[in-house]
Amino acid sequence: MTMSDQQYESGKPPAKLRDVAEMAGVSIATASKALNGRVHVHPATRDKVLRTAEKLSFAGKISSKHTGTVGLITSDLDGRFSIPILMGAEDAFGTGRVSVMLCDARGDSIREQYHLQALLEKNVDGLILVGSTTDPRKSLGHDLPVPVVYVYAPSEDPTDLSLVPDDRQAGAEAAVYLVRSGRSRIAHITGDVAYTAARDRAAGVEAALAEAKLPLAGGETLYGAWSESWGRTATERLINGGVDFDAILCGSDQIARGALEILREHQIAVPSQVAVMGLDNWHLFVEGGRPLLTSVDMNLEGLGRAAAQRLSEAIGGQVAQGIERMPCKLVVRESA
Amino acid sequence: MTMSDQQYESGKPPAKLRDVAEMAGVSIATASKALNGRVHVHPATRDKVLRTAEKLSFAGKISSKHTGTVGLITSDLDGRFSIPILMGAEDAFGTGRVSVMLCDARGDSIREQYHLQALLEKNVDGLILVGSTTDPRKSLGHDLPVPVVYVYAPSEDPTDLSLVPDDRQAGAEAAVYLVRSGRSRIAHITGDVAYTAARDRAAGVEAALAEAKLPLAGGETLYGAWSESWGRTATERLINGGVDFDAILCGSDQIARGALEILREHQIAVPSQVAVMGLDNWHLFVEGGRPLLTSVDMNLEGLGRAAAQRLSEAIGGQVAQGIERMPCKLVVRESA
Repeated sequence: MTMSDQQYESGKPPAKLRDVAEMAGVSIATASKALNGRVHVHPATRDKVLRTAEKLSFAGKISSKHTGTVGLITSDLDGRFSIPILMGAEDAFGTGRVSVMLCDARGDSIREQYHLQALLEKNVDGLILVGSTTDPRKSLGHDLPVPVVYVYAPSEDPTDLSLVPDDRQAGAEAAVYLVRSGRSRIAHITGDVAYTAARDRAAGVEAALAEAKLPLAGGETLYGAWSESWGRTATERLINGGVDFDAILCGSDQIARGALEILREHQIAVPSQVAVMGLDNWHLFVEGGRPLLTSVDMNLEGLGRAAAQRLSEAIGGQVAQGIERMPCKLVVRESA
Repeated sequence: MTMSDQQYESGKPPAKLRDVAEMAGVSIATASKALNGRVHVHPATRDKVLRTAEKLSFAGKISSKHTGTVGLITSDLDGRFSIPILMGAEDAFGTGRVSVMLCDARGDSIREQYHLQALLEKNVDGLILVGSTTDPRKSLGHDLPVPVVYVYAPSEDPTDLSLVPDDRQAGAEAAVYLVRSGRSRIAHITGDVAYTAARDRAAGVEAALAEAKLPLAGGETLYGAWSESWGRTATERLINGGVDFDAILCGSDQIARGALEILREHQIAVPSQVAVMGLDNWHLFVEGGRPLLTSVDMNLEGLGRAAAQRLSEAIGGQVAQGIERMPCKLVVRESA
């Protein structure tokens, strides 16, 4: 089968968001929020919208002309981002409707091209490209026979469609939560400044504090590494440097775990004396913290669901472009 | 294309292990060890064997009659096991020769059947089934048009081929290392007794201690949960119970991290007073330990490489059966 044989023949026209909203008896805004996995939708409403979308929209989009398979190419060696995104995408397509097939490119463009050709030869209906960081990546171009959605790492080409977590909002949300709970001397310890995610999260924190007319404790964001070890080192530095702080907002849960350890060693009570927050809400790290770590969930399954929705729309001819930033969600536990 | 069209036509006969050994100038035993990712092979020798195998064996096996794709169906929600196994398999097949396509069944047999059909419709050359635990699983049966290798979770059917980490050997290896480094009062804290892995690892520990004529400190294996929290609770219990111990062998790295924390709080020096070991060698947890955690690597990429080798042999007509246990490898850091 040649590449031209793989060109999409048009199936049934895709169901519009309006149809889903009407049939589910909700507003278009609510339907959109529910499908995007946003937070402020009642679970029962969300379920209703998702069920309706599944019946109406996706059944229409994934017509019999299609193979019911989507390729996901990832460069995420731990599976940290790609497995939840894969699961979210399959849930949105509807169980038993679409198989998402994951190939691992390991951040290597030659491997990526090889897997891309293998997936196209299998006549997948579309592609989801998942990066290992939120740093922009090269576009695959527009000569492919199937639509592509970039997830987590956005494409450098603004005419591609990319879905990324809103890291700036995540940082701001965490800072606002700390301010509202009465903290006024907030330090920010985060990962490597070379990562877009570190800078975006810090920008959100700094903007939220400026808005509240509060300075950053210690005077500046402490950039370092995405590790427990850096969380420990930086927290020691704050304490030994005599910095006056009543909260530490950490750029990742691993950094926050390091901060918790050092505060405990110095017999500084969390959260009564110092509140600690992580970002990511990675279950492996939030659940082992003492106390349990308050964090911000990056909503990776929501990213996957949105990717599936956009890919279905694109397969049906409704092609979108640009970068969509998906909101993240505060998860309050014990540490803040 | 119907299922019968997918039946394997025989390609070139596969290269035998003997050919690989001869061409690489090593013994058959060494070639086998190198291909299986075992430990006692010099890296240079291993590289030579792998390169030879790639040239000779796999190039022969994955003939032009095949599609150069292998399906991997996993139930591992974190990607913890499946991503390294996938990477090992691709490395063994040879970069640019085979795309391994992963589908996530989430431990659900209906999803598994759905993905299975989707992969068979894509004419994959073979299947790798990865479980989320080492507990035995139901066989897919023998009516499939392509060979199957079960990895991590063995098939209940002894006529299937299964590759699993040798958990018993891993436990024994860790215990022997502690005994040889002079420890004689070794406690064993491990996960949920319902898991085959917990019982196998404990059996290895207990057998090695019996061999050394040493009792288990505290009198019995402490089964609990695969968590940092259980590691902390059990270690507190040992200390508060007045148990005399100079080493804690933990059934997972997460449990070991909990043990390290509590020993530190009680100002018990590691490793000088008490040695601590983990099992798994999961980089996320060993690297954050204070001190860095000595552990036993489950050699997941080696499992993947062996799966690829066995699958290639089966595709070439050499079908094996039974459970092969792959050796695990001690990784010494600071904690023991």
